[in-house]
Amino acid sequence: EIVAAIEAALAVGPLVGRHVLVTSGPTHEPIDPVRYIANRSSGAQGTAIAVALRDLGATVTFVTGPAAVPAPNGVAVVRVETAAQMLAAVEAALPADAAVMAAAVADWRVANASGQKMKKHGSGQVPSLEFAENPDILSSVSKGLMRPKLVVGFAAETERVAEYAAAKRLRKGCDWIVANDVSPQTGIMGGTENAVTLITEAGAEVWPRMGKDAVARALAARIAASLA
Amino acid sequence: EIVAAIEAALAVGPLVGRHVLVTSGPTHEPIDPVRYIANRSSGAQGTAIAVALRDLGATVTFVTGPAAVPAPNGVAVVRVETAAQMLAAVEAALPADAAVMAAAVADWRVANASGQKMKKHGSGQVPSLEFAENPDILSSVSKGLMRPKLVVGFAAETERVAEYAAAKRLRKGCDWIVANDVSPQTGIMGGTENAVTLITEAGAEVWPRMGKDAVARALAARIAASLA
Repeated sequence: EIVAAIEAALAVGPLVGRHVLVTSGPTHEPIDPVRYIANRSSGAQGTAIAVALRDLGATVTFVTGPAAVPAPNGVAVVRVETAAQMLAAVEAALPADAAVMAAAVADWRVANASGQKMKKHGSGQVPSLEFAENPDILSSVSKGLMRPKLVVGFAAETERVAEYAAAKRLRKGCDWIVANDVSPQTGIMGGTENAVTLITEAGAEVWPRMGKDAVARALAARIAASLA
Repeated sequence: EIVAAIEAALAVGPLVGRHVLVTSGPTHEPIDPVRYIANRSSGAQGTAIAVALRDLGATVTFVTGPAAVPAPNGVAVVRVETAAQMLAAVEAALPADAAVMAAAVADWRVANASGQKMKKHGSGQVPSLEFAENPDILSSVSKGLMRPKLVVGFAAETERVAEYAAAKRLRKGCDWIVANDVSPQTGIMGGTENAVTLITEAGAEVWPRMGKDAVARALAARIAASLA
């Protein structure tokens, strides 16, 4: 903590004086007191991006769901569990110069979550879960009154990655989309490498497969250039 | 590994020469390639029980779902993800002198899991998940042809703990049930302590709240006495 504070005070780098919001990790949506819906995001890519931005001198607010990898030092960590909590934390963290929305936010929550553990009654009876669409955090930030100058979204796809991501960029109103293929055979979700396609107004850039740390440094450098 | 092998070879203790099967951790049930249904079991209690049995000299097969705590040394670890995989691993591990079924197995799986990531289409459309009841591993072991002499089940309840657990013991056909209250306010699920009620043929014993390690040692000693 002290070392991080000293490092921040001594920081040099293109992002000194800039506030960047980074979201990371999965969200968990409760079904009942013991069960929840999760996703395979480890938080590794979002964490690496927060580190890379910090290392370029940025003041980073790091809003994270229950991730497998530990949160970095030298950033302001806000821990949340659900998508609704993440939206509230993101709104509280604005204004920011840039927002990198790397969290894998659950699209749906369970509308009829139970306060008691649901019982198995045998004889083939199964629970009936009703779903409600979660708030769209990327869209909300991109179209909000407090919109950062640069908003970067993420797209985790299993098919037609660049096509879906380009459509997502327009629909959400963000500036860039970092798209990747999370098909199980790629080993990307939960792994240490990433194969990214960066979607900007100018089109799609297919980046070579590299470590998530290297992706993070490349993206942070692009963010610094964009804010310069 | 080597140390564990030497310790096993030199083992003394009441369970030397006994094979005990322990299941532990949550199971994850896929919804699509990136989403799954999980539960809050950390695997801490099952892991502590495997350690305690090992330390009494038992040969332990440890079948574990994706747990938060690491699997112990000196036991045979079999890693699974879903309830169906856990059943297969349990059947493959028999025969055993005793089985301690501490895993928090998902009661239901998603019957219509998708091979591609489900898309959010906007305008309030939500997914429709169909559930199917998972195999009942505790019942299957308790009533199976390869039934261990002692079968210990677990019950995680949020209300009427002893009553529900005693009914579960009869329904499943196991010898004992280790019951606990996993209401969020207890901090037990995911925590380091446990407050256990042991249900046997003789009735219900309410154990004082203690560390999960202490619960494990007490239970392992009872198992050793039962197999003696």
